[in-house]
Amino acid sequence: MPHETRHRVVVLGGGFGGVFTAKNLQRVAGSDVEILLISRHNFFVFQPLLAEIAGGSINPGDGVTPLRRFLPGVSVMVAEVRAIDLEGKKVEVTLDRGSGIRTVAYDQLVIALGQVVDLSRTPGLADSALVMKDLVDAFNIRNKVLGCLERADAAIDAERKRSFLTFVVIGGGFTGIETVGEVQELIGKSLRYYPNIRADEVRIILIQHGSRILMELPEHLAAYAAEQLRRRGIEIRLRTGVAAATATGIETDSGQQIDAATIVAAIGNAPSSLVRSLPVALERGRIVVDRHLRVPGQDGVWALGDNAQIPLGDARDGKVAYAPPLAQFAVREAKVLARNILAQMEGRALTVFEYRSLGTMASLGGRRGVAEIMGVRITGFIAWAAWRAFYLSLLPGVATRIRVAADWLLDLMVSKSIAEIRAAQPGSGQVRFRAGELVFVPGIDPGGLYVVTAGMFEVGADQHQAAAEGRGENAGSTRKLGPGGHFGMSLARTAGPGDGWARACEDSIAYFVGKDDLHRLAMVAALIGSKQDSDEASRIAASRDR
Amino acid sequence: MPHETRHRVVVLGGGFGGVFTAKNLQRVAGSDVEILLISRHNFFVFQPLLAEIAGGSINPGDGVTPLRRFLPGVSVMVAEVRAIDLEGKKVEVTLDRGSGIRTVAYDQLVIALGQVVDLSRTPGLADSALVMKDLVDAFNIRNKVLGCLERADAAIDAERKRSFLTFVVIGGGFTGIETVGEVQELIGKSLRYYPNIRADEVRIILIQHGSRILMELPEHLAAYAAEQLRRRGIEIRLRTGVAAATATGIETDSGQQIDAATIVAAIGNAPSSLVRSLPVALERGRIVVDRHLRVPGQDGVWALGDNAQIPLGDARDGKVAYAPPLAQFAVREAKVLARNILAQMEGRALTVFEYRSLGTMASLGGRRGVAEIMGVRITGFIAWAAWRAFYLSLLPGVATRIRVAADWLLDLMVSKSIAEIRAAQPGSGQVRFRAGELVFVPGIDPGGLYVVTAGMFEVGADQHQAAAEGRGENAGSTRKLGPGGHFGMSLARTAGPGDGWARACEDSIAYFVGKDDLHRLAMVAALIGSKQDSDEASRIAASRDR
Repeated sequence: MPHETRHRVVVLGGGFGGVFTAKNLQRVAGSDVEILLISRHNFFVFQPLLAEIAGGSINPGDGVTPLRRFLPGVSVMVAEVRAIDLEGKKVEVTLDRGSGIRTVAYDQLVIALGQVVDLSRTPGLADSALVMKDLVDAFNIRNKVLGCLERADAAIDAERKRSFLTFVVIGGGFTGIETVGEVQELIGKSLRYYPNIRADEVRIILIQHGSRILMELPEHLAAYAAEQLRRRGIEIRLRTGVAAATATGIETDSGQQIDAATIVAAIGNAPSSLVRSLPVALERGRIVVDRHLRVPGQDGVWALGDNAQIPLGDARDGKVAYAPPLAQFAVREAKVLARNILAQMEGRALTVFEYRSLGTMASLGGRRGVAEIMGVRITGFIAWAAWRAFYLSLLPGVATRIRVAADWLLDLMVSKSIAEIRAAQPGSGQVRFRAGELVFVPGIDPGGLYVVTAGMFEVGADQHQAAAEGRGENAGSTRKLGPGGHFGMSLARTAGPGDGWARACEDSIAYFVGKDDLHRLAMVAALIGSKQDSDEASRIAASRDR
Repeated sequence: MPHETRHRVVVLGGGFGGVFTAKNLQRVAGSDVEILLISRHNFFVFQPLLAEIAGGSINPGDGVTPLRRFLPGVSVMVAEVRAIDLEGKKVEVTLDRGSGIRTVAYDQLVIALGQVVDLSRTPGLADSALVMKDLVDAFNIRNKVLGCLERADAAIDAERKRSFLTFVVIGGGFTGIETVGEVQELIGKSLRYYPNIRADEVRIILIQHGSRILMELPEHLAAYAAEQLRRRGIEIRLRTGVAAATATGIETDSGQQIDAATIVAAIGNAPSSLVRSLPVALERGRIVVDRHLRVPGQDGVWALGDNAQIPLGDARDGKVAYAPPLAQFAVREAKVLARNILAQMEGRALTVFEYRSLGTMASLGGRRGVAEIMGVRITGFIAWAAWRAFYLSLLPGVATRIRVAADWLLDLMVSKSIAEIRAAQPGSGQVRFRAGELVFVPGIDPGGLYVVTAGMFEVGADQHQAAAEGRGENAGSTRKLGPGGHFGMSLARTAGPGDGWARACEDSIAYFVGKDDLHRLAMVAALIGSKQDSDEASRIAASRDR
């Protein structure tokens, strides 16, 4: 446990801003300052490489840098920051559930919490879309894509097959472009192993609200990128928004329905509720700081990275330029911030943050990229290679660099692994059934509970079930179930695979609850008792905001 | 889609037996035979390497071989086999939930379904233990172990810290030994990054029912293995069984309580319910076959691998020897089986299965192993190296071999990644609280719903909650909650982080339901309506058998 005597600097956030602030501060201040970094994960996730993990070019464990290894001399705490008390100069964190709450006092505080994904503005999107924020997200996308190829290869129903083979990526920024590029490469390289899928059956759609992709890049580079992606069969829909997402796909703002089993949302960056709750000025959802990265009016509070609004100079003809949310900026901000913290302690003058971008680049997958480096515009293979080289150099930690380099080498040498890593038990979610389709038949374990959300199902109850429901007289009878009705598990549970069956009378949708989830549900419901539970439940359902 | 005219051989199971039968059959029969392999996963998981994945020496995606790549000319279907109709010569499979049911007719059937893990004989074990059967299992164990180090490093409460640092592996066979060895190595190599954990605080316990470990190996090799593991600080408890497992740990059959946050069960191999349901003779849970690997009395039905009882010769002095469940045997069985299928088609005589083991070996982690190869007994580094070389050679697919070799090389060169890969949202499960401990306080988002299962909690309700429950008069009052009571989510949901709080009055246990699970629960409960739901729920809870 750190001793309480030293000047304590607490850094919130394990992204570029936080990690490099801690790193630099440790370098310049040595052991004079106690540095505590609080992060949700025990690793530093290198955002620009997430797309490569989603595309299977990098192994999940290799693409990230364990914080403890990269930050010797810095205390690392894996915890969720729940509250910041600027008055009392302390932070409240919750460790893993059941490990209680801890209050951490600080002398100086660095806020580098980045941004969160908020999809709440589009109905249904949060429930049906995968995001690209976290390591697990990238890992999930890879497995979802490969899983869809498996389902499609085995699918009987044509419309369902089409849905499995439609991949929608929402957002034409760096993340969206790099994700759609990697996903296309993964699919393109894997397709030859799926004899029942023709290349022309696969649809990969990029949806961009703006008038072009990669707004962050000069127009002609964006044009080149779009051209490259189109050549590889990716449909790019410009000036298109998403009005709603459902169990079956998305609806564009022009009212068009796109059936897709895979929806990736690379949009919706927003400040966390924690940042919003702070008694400090926000601009475009970012914490306003001065050119020294100080939060005005707060003693010993600093902010940098994506959650800070950092002026790049004094207002020229009325308008101020601000630092863009780019890794290279965060790294430089961290240098200045670390120096300023020490300067403040020693009563020296503070440095102002100044930095001109080295340039920007994007990987398009398929060994193509676009880049503008110090005014020079590069496209194609060289830009792609430069992208990899640049990010490899930015990557913190030698071990991580070696691992990523090795992964890239392997990816060039041997074909990508198409192993779909998933639990044996199917999870929960909306499931569609075509008219007349069988859900399960006698002797088949339904594997979970089905709750009808739309349409109509016909269910053949078996003796046990009938008995259990005290309808001994009309045992073995069939019943029709509309929305709210439920069937499945219980039909079969009473005696393993039961002699019940279920069929969709029309095109219908059911919410499927897998065995494991169902067990939790059953346990909780049984513990609580039905009445309270449903009040509880509906209140939560009503007030749910993610 | 395969055309229906050719002679169709359907192989059930993606393990050694199934995969190599399909491979060999394709080699000898070429395109005369249509071969369909049905597997739950789209990859071949190399059981002996699971421990290395759990220990982080091999990346999950690298340790497995995608079936489609390894089996050109063989149709692969990723599906769950639900029913086998030997009369009608067809198999019923369910594709991914919602992708419907398919019936597959066969001319000849190969049953290679292996075994499943059945922990139902030990109360609570299925709910609280991790297993080592599947790729995801190994992946989960690695992350659980690293997660426990994180929790322990940050823990305040001494008893809880002890529990986080206690790792129990149940089972002293190959899987158990290799798992405990790898887990110890992972922890040993990672510990230097956790300043708040002293090496002597870590307890790794192996529990073995028998009188010694590695019954499959000669006594003195087992003794060497035990000695090696003990030297590395692993406690080995012989002649010890597990009477029960709880939210907090296990209870041995001698009534001793062991508090442990991590429990791995490397026991409980049993035939699947599907195999048990077949109208064929079973012996020790295995399908009885003749020396040609035919299932007696069934036309065109074969079985091999772990789910088959294969006589190794004619009864000598009354007792018959049977093929052990080892990879090297399954591979040889597959060769014979493939040849016999073709022979049967062409009316030629069948071959009998005969094979003498090359020997057995086990890796102990920490670059130590034990082996008996063709009578020669080897221990230490050479045995470990031999183990890796042998399994690398058995590993199907060049790409997979290269990837595994590369991982091993990296593992020797650079330190293991200690990145804990997990979802940001905490999942559901039992949580303990010490007397007086705060569960959450005003301003803190509880993150989920807590249902009291033991002990007593005091909860401060806030205005919203009180109002929602129509107790406007005594709003803001506190209440005590015993088993069945619930608190958390709803207190905070009404207005983000609420002004409610909860504290454990005594040492208590609550079942925590994370946001995401809770949302599903709420959705289902709301859809079904309380009454039906709880009946449903309790019936399921009652009849649950896993």
